Amino acid sequence: MVHTGACIASLLGQGGSRKYHLTWSWLKYFKNDQDRRDLITCGAAAGVAAAFRAPVGGVLFALEEAASWWRSALLWRTFFTTAVVAIVLRTFIEYCWTGKCGLFGQGGLIMYDVSAATETYSGPDILAVLFLGVVGGIFGSLYNYLVDKVLRTYSIINEKGARFKILLVVTICILTTCCSFGLPWFSKCIPCPTDPAVTCSTESGNFKRFQCQSGYYNDLASLFLNTNDDAIRNLFSTSTRDEFRISSLFIFFAAIYCLGIITYGIAVPSGLFIPVILAGACYGRLVGRLFASISKLDTGLFALLGAASFLGGTMRMTVSLCVILLELTNDLLLLPLIMLVLLVSKTVADCFNKGVYDQIVKLKGLPYMEAHAEPYMKHLAARDVVSGPLVTFSGIEKVGNIMHALRTTGHNGFPVIDEPPFTDASELCGIVLRSHLLVLLKGKSFSRNQVHCGGEILRKYAALDFAKAGSGKGMKLEDLNIEEEEMEMYVDLHPITNASPYTVVETMSLAKAAILFRQLGLRHMCVVPKSQGRPPIVGILTRHDFMPEHILGLYPHLSPHK
Amino acid sequence: MVHTGACIASLLGQGGSRKYHLTWSWLKYFKNDQDRRDLITCGAAAGVAAAFRAPVGGVLFALEEAASWWRSALLWRTFFTTAVVAIVLRTFIEYCWTGKCGLFGQGGLIMYDVSAATETYSGPDILAVLFLGVVGGIFGSLYNYLVDKVLRTYSIINEKGARFKILLVVTICILTTCCSFGLPWFSKCIPCPTDPAVTCSTESGNFKRFQCQSGYYNDLASLFLNTNDDAIRNLFSTSTRDEFRISSLFIFFAAIYCLGIITYGIAVPSGLFIPVILAGACYGRLVGRLFASISKLDTGLFALLGAASFLGGTMRMTVSLCVILLELTNDLLLLPLIMLVLLVSKTVADCFNKGVYDQIVKLKGLPYMEAHAEPYMKHLAARDVVSGPLVTFSGIEKVGNIMHALRTTGHNGFPVIDEPPFTDASELCGIVLRSHLLVLLKGKSFSRNQVHCGGEILRKYAALDFAKAGSGKGMKLEDLNIEEEEMEMYVDLHPITNASPYTVVETMSLAKAAILFRQLGLRHMCVVPKSQGRPPIVGILTRHDFMPEHILGLYPHLSPHK
Repeated sequence: MVHTGACIASLLGQGGSRKYHLTWSWLKYFKNDQDRRDLITCGAAAGVAAAFRAPVGGVLFALEEAASWWRSALLWRTFFTTAVVAIVLRTFIEYCWTGKCGLFGQGGLIMYDVSAATETYSGPDILAVLFLGVVGGIFGSLYNYLVDKVLRTYSIINEKGARFKILLVVTICILTTCCSFGLPWFSKCIPCPTDPAVTCSTESGNFKRFQCQSGYYNDLASLFLNTNDDAIRNLFSTSTRDEFRISSLFIFFAAIYCLGIITYGIAVPSGLFIPVILAGACYGRLVGRLFASISKLDTGLFALLGAASFLGGTMRMTVSLCVILLELTNDLLLLPLIMLVLLVSKTVADCFNKGVYDQIVKLKGLPYMEAHAEPYMKHLAARDVVSGPLVTFSGIEKVGNIMHALRTTGHNGFPVIDEPPFTDASELCGIVLRSHLLVLLKGKSFSRNQVHCGGEILRKYAALDFAKAGSGKGMKLEDLNIEEEEMEMYVDLHPITNASPYTVVETMSLAKAAILFRQLGLRHMCVVPKSQGRPPIVGILTRHDFMPEHILGLYPHLSPHK
Repeated sequence: MVHTGACIASLLGQGGSRKYHLTWSWLKYFKNDQDRRDLITCGAAAGVAAAFRAPVGGVLFALEEAASWWRSALLWRTFFTTAVVAIVLRTFIEYCWTGKCGLFGQGGLIMYDVSAATETYSGPDILAVLFLGVVGGIFGSLYNYLVDKVLRTYSIINEKGARFKILLVVTICILTTCCSFGLPWFSKCIPCPTDPAVTCSTESGNFKRFQCQSGYYNDLASLFLNTNDDAIRNLFSTSTRDEFRISSLFIFFAAIYCLGIITYGIAVPSGLFIPVILAGACYGRLVGRLFASISKLDTGLFALLGAASFLGGTMRMTVSLCVILLELTNDLLLLPLIMLVLLVSKTVADCFNKGVYDQIVKLKGLPYMEAHAEPYMKHLAARDVVSGPLVTFSGIEKVGNIMHALRTTGHNGFPVIDEPPFTDASELCGIVLRSHLLVLLKGKSFSRNQVHCGGEILRKYAALDFAKAGSGKGMKLEDLNIEEEEMEMYVDLHPITNASPYTVVETMSLAKAAILFRQLGLRHMCVVPKSQGRPPIVGILTRHDFMPEHILGLYPHLSPHK
């Protein structure tokens, strides 16, 4: 759902899909990087809000995990988005209560309501909860470690082609089915609760009969053969201490933990949240049963805390998880304990490895910049990591030179340098983007001599001509049709030059440059020389230049852990 | 409470109070700006968490309102702080339930529990709620406007001396007392509820008898003569539609609204939150009674929504208010409506003026930088606002020159320029802070000639010698005792120079420079020349140079609203 929300937002940000005739003209306002990034953040927030019915949790999730660059305007926008989601959701729930939605419409705004439970707890309870948090953190980081290994294996398999992908999916499916229908045979039958409202049948209800005779139910089957949602609800349910036996909980936990690890990453839409909550709830209930002699806390609440500890151990979020759990369970009185568990499990897990989202981002090879600078960056200056060769343009440049540079390099930004006779000394005019160059060349505003004709060029274009196109829809070099004669002509780059690029002096500490780059969300940063009498630019820094792989490749003696 | 928390944190950040022998040696780690700022943010979060028993709300309050500069590490730290607050609070509540705390210990973790209310609502209800939000936003912005005017008046009165301060406090006290005991006489008596658990007496209980005969109560007195907490609880209480008459609500609302405005800013510790919630709850209940014919929503819920609309209209926070209200009332099912009301009231109020905290910050004359750049900044370059005269030092400078500069200017940062013969051309070495200069001069590491002796100087000092001292405890110029002979000697500034200051080119757009300054939380920014052959620094930008008053003073033709 989070992914879906972000994808829809991304699609809208690209002005809709031209292929499927889903374009609106007002979407053109999103044709720049910043608004598009904000829109995707809002989409992710809306996804969480809808999936967990947790609007505030959605806002916090987007801010804590999704947004790498935070502004107060963004807070307000995500809040607006999730408020709309909440109201629409509420309207549909209201409508579905009337029974017009068929199978849908059972649930309310709270997915797993545990608010009826009592909430007194004492010293031994807190000790048990601390233990739960520590072990949950260890299991969580182990989960991350195994998911990482499995994903690496899967990416090798998936690369071999569609046939292998399908084979992998089928294998996992068969394995899951075997677990679901095979393992319950190991469990013994338990007499049905005496409550007349409860029936034990395999077709419907929470208590699955499976192989048992009438009036009995199989607790392991009740966990496996329900939907995930119902299984979580069963595990969270309070005042039902003996509904599941310890051995069944243990088998279910082991199975779900392993299945969760091997399912993520195959070619089916699957998430991380629900499997982790399920495994965590099972683990928590197990601990609750084991500690029943020393702790008076309900096993259902233990299940909730177990889910919190697993989520803290894998996702490593704090505030947003806390609010999402709050909104899932409606149990505000348990808040201090949930906060405690999250703190403990996150701290424990942070000793071992990184959060699961960070791991996936790294695995996918996305150039994600950490919010803080690495320690070894302090020993380097900005000029040390500039990757050459540097291609610069004059303020009024020959078309042929531009075409050559665009063709031979993959750079997205080129520094523009004003040179005599137009200025006294050669100086940095600014930076020009590849996409803007392409638009300018397409318009063919060329002149035979090196003359300023900026005003004339500006009149020819509207501001939206230079707006960022959707991914894969921008102009390409092959679209240009420049004739041989035009190659010798000149074009004035001043109108499309960003005259205020962010610059750093070449001796600036790399750590400080990285913080500047990251905090302002830049794409290019100019490195200028310190002493005079040298060319006015030393190089351009892009995101790739700040990646640990690049820096450590240049300076292998620097250890990332120093 | 928020202020108290922040003050304690600030005190800790300054290494405790030496005056009262409250110092700890481990507090020295907070002797730098960044950690101190974080600590104060955590203190404010802890204050909110304790005051409203809302730990998550505290984190969000700190992030949305208190912290001007946000990092993910800060999120984690504030979360830790409020988690500790929540657990300690919970322990005390548990302890107090045993009855060992005397008058304390009545409340639970939820201050105003309304969770028992039903939560279905339909079209007309939403219309009523929208109306509530719009009018609440207008009232909220009016509140801000009046508070601003009143504070301006009070600051004039308070400046006249302690006698006037006390007189003002006494006047407001008398006025409040007159309202509390005078206005209830206008209200008629109402028969006591038939519930035998309820007694109507003036001494105790929610229903105050006041002037009425036995078996009757005065509803206006019940509001005025209860504590604020109990009054809010009464207003929020559900299924008690006719407890208060419309006229009583109206009188109470008008009185509390006006008293709240004139009470803030007098020399007693008072807050904004509780008066606003009280007035808002009363307003909401009033609207609920007026709309009783078309809306089936409970008047207690209307009171809650009214409080939300007032808070949104004055404080202009969204997510944090939402969570604080959630944690105050434990009513998750009302979340969509609360979000709607907050959205509407904030949007409406934003049309008129700024949030009350922004207004107070501006009134106090604190140089607070907006997160976004003002539109008129786009028309200026960084060099346009540099305020002179610029005082620079050589890399190895004469002591007399430094003393003169420190004495005649109030600057806190001085650029250091390396000049021939030490370098080929004069170039910017970095920036040196006043406080560090004082420490260096105190140590008297002088030499008779212009020689590099950086290593020797570094050995003389420990890193903590340069740590930031508590406010008012730093070294002063008068503490230095430089003799006439030493004035002619030289000191090497290189060891204490920050060699990687953030710089901008003089032609950089001021808007971009402001964003850089704000996002990185800088104190000084160097402006360097664009063309070569000029002195290596144009000027230093500080926070004051970005203030609208400064810029518009220099360029009066620029309108702030353009």
